[in-house]
Amino acid sequence: MTSRRKRLSVNEYVDGVLAGNTVVLSRTITLIESNLAGDQALAEQVLIRILPYTGNSKRIGITGVPGVGKSTFIEAMGLHLAEMDKKLAVLAVDPSSQRSGGSILGDKTRMEQLSHHRNAYIRPSATGASLGGVANKTRETMLLCEAAGYKIIFIETVGVGQSEVAVKGMVDFFLLLMLAGAGDELQGIKKGIMEMADAIAITKADTDNITASKKARAEYQNALHLFPPSETDWSPKVLTCSAVTRQGLDDIWKMIEEYFSHMGSGLDQLRKHQNINWMHETIGFLLKNNFYHKPEVAERIPEMEKQVGLGEITPQAAARELIRL
Amino acid sequence: MTSRRKRLSVNEYVDGVLAGNTVVLSRTITLIESNLAGDQALAEQVLIRILPYTGNSKRIGITGVPGVGKSTFIEAMGLHLAEMDKKLAVLAVDPSSQRSGGSILGDKTRMEQLSHHRNAYIRPSATGASLGGVANKTRETMLLCEAAGYKIIFIETVGVGQSEVAVKGMVDFFLLLMLAGAGDELQGIKKGIMEMADAIAITKADTDNITASKKARAEYQNALHLFPPSETDWSPKVLTCSAVTRQGLDDIWKMIEEYFSHMGSGLDQLRKHQNINWMHETIGFLLKNNFYHKPEVAERIPEMEKQVGLGEITPQAAARELIRL
Repeated sequence: MTSRRKRLSVNEYVDGVLAGNTVVLSRTITLIESNLAGDQALAEQVLIRILPYTGNSKRIGITGVPGVGKSTFIEAMGLHLAEMDKKLAVLAVDPSSQRSGGSILGDKTRMEQLSHHRNAYIRPSATGASLGGVANKTRETMLLCEAAGYKIIFIETVGVGQSEVAVKGMVDFFLLLMLAGAGDELQGIKKGIMEMADAIAITKADTDNITASKKARAEYQNALHLFPPSETDWSPKVLTCSAVTRQGLDDIWKMIEEYFSHMGSGLDQLRKHQNINWMHETIGFLLKNNFYHKPEVAERIPEMEKQVGLGEITPQAAARELIRL
Repeated sequence: MTSRRKRLSVNEYVDGVLAGNTVVLSRTITLIESNLAGDQALAEQVLIRILPYTGNSKRIGITGVPGVGKSTFIEAMGLHLAEMDKKLAVLAVDPSSQRSGGSILGDKTRMEQLSHHRNAYIRPSATGASLGGVANKTRETMLLCEAAGYKIIFIETVGVGQSEVAVKGMVDFFLLLMLAGAGDELQGIKKGIMEMADAIAITKADTDNITASKKARAEYQNALHLFPPSETDWSPKVLTCSAVTRQGLDDIWKMIEEYFSHMGSGLDQLRKHQNINWMHETIGFLLKNNFYHKPEVAERIPEMEKQVGLGEITPQAAARELIRL
């Protein structure tokens, strides 16, 4: 259908987004996610226009390994907030999902109640070949949602890769979901992610899991005290919750609000710092992207990786040789 | 003096390094650290020749904040090993030190005994404008030391920046030095470094600090159990030691040897993986380095950072604009 491909004017996109029109918002996000040069130029014009209306939200990253109950948590917490009349957008960074053809948020039935709530807007993960590209699109989508009036943005990742570093670089607060019971459930979480968290929520703290969850909470709280303090002087908190009984959800939200009070004007500083870092990261990403897509480079990479892996050439020499191409 | 600047032939460098001649080794490292194009071409020829003789060492990263007693620990542990007739080289990655004009290992008086031991070779941190460049030179220096017959390589960093990520990418084992007494001494350690460590050594466990050190050891050991396991299935250990009484040094070394037994042939896999990653990191570094040194880019960066910081332009748009230059 050609009508689906038809583009609006810059004014129509901007006015629709600023009016909080979710149909236009979705079309603008689709425009941003497009890889066509014409669309990208149009998207850039839209973004520059909506930029003055962005920033007025709490940006919250949420991560945890599959099985921890991320979607269930986001639905329960999202409903809790939506019912308090807070406008909430849920986005995702999940580059791995494209390979399997689906997105963590693509299956909306997992968040059926939330997706039908008038205060909630859910958008599946952008697709793309690389994390840098996907993360950039999620970040721009976040700005559009802010301009559309969403005061809380949840950005979900899967806790098993580099996505968390990208998400940490675009959010104000980073929440890690964990399950009680030491050991197995940690398999899959990448090193370094726990130290990044501003808070840990122990999920599924209900029925016969309550005692174990309380114990886990105390253990993690003790452990976090041993770890380096963050630059924002915020001590990471550990809380328990249940999506079924809704126990703990309100405490978690109050803790997040406490964080924003704690940050005060430091939040502007944090975001300024993030923006500048993001620019440099994007430069690196674009340079690498252009480089690896050159046919003469793409052709040589497998052979170079093999030689480097076998120790026939140093990684540095291989890199220099590829650059000389 | 022109004689100091005179270069040897490729054969002379290679033969000298392989013979374990420390004078030639030092001159070869100086060649590698040189930024002159002619020297770099020569260095590349030397490296390719010595490459078959590399890899036969235990590569150990050592980090900790200033004040933790890093130099003292390295001297005591180094002497312990040198006296067991093990050949040991001590290198450093410390890009920050160039700004203050000195290197963490520059002041050899801090390792006076070790630097005079015939089994030890100490080389100050390379100088350079960027971490990527310094780390590349340290990595190549490590290869030269291996070819010269050093069976243990210590690579020291300061624990406060990105250097640890670079060092983690070139060593087999990563040791974090900590002091007993929770809280203050953690100021300065960057988030994520503790989760990277294969072991923590609590230093200065002597005189009236013994009880506190034992307590800290138990606490950290408990905490590490809660954290994600590494891909190598090695559970990080926590030990105590004293450079003064030499208590614990032998246990730490035995633990490190246990790690290498545990790794078995997995070590080759780890290094292969590291080499390929290092190639891609170096590509990224070279691309960025070339880019940021272009005058038209260098000139625009401050203005762009300002605009991005003020939120007048998105980081993505700023990056794209700079790339278009």
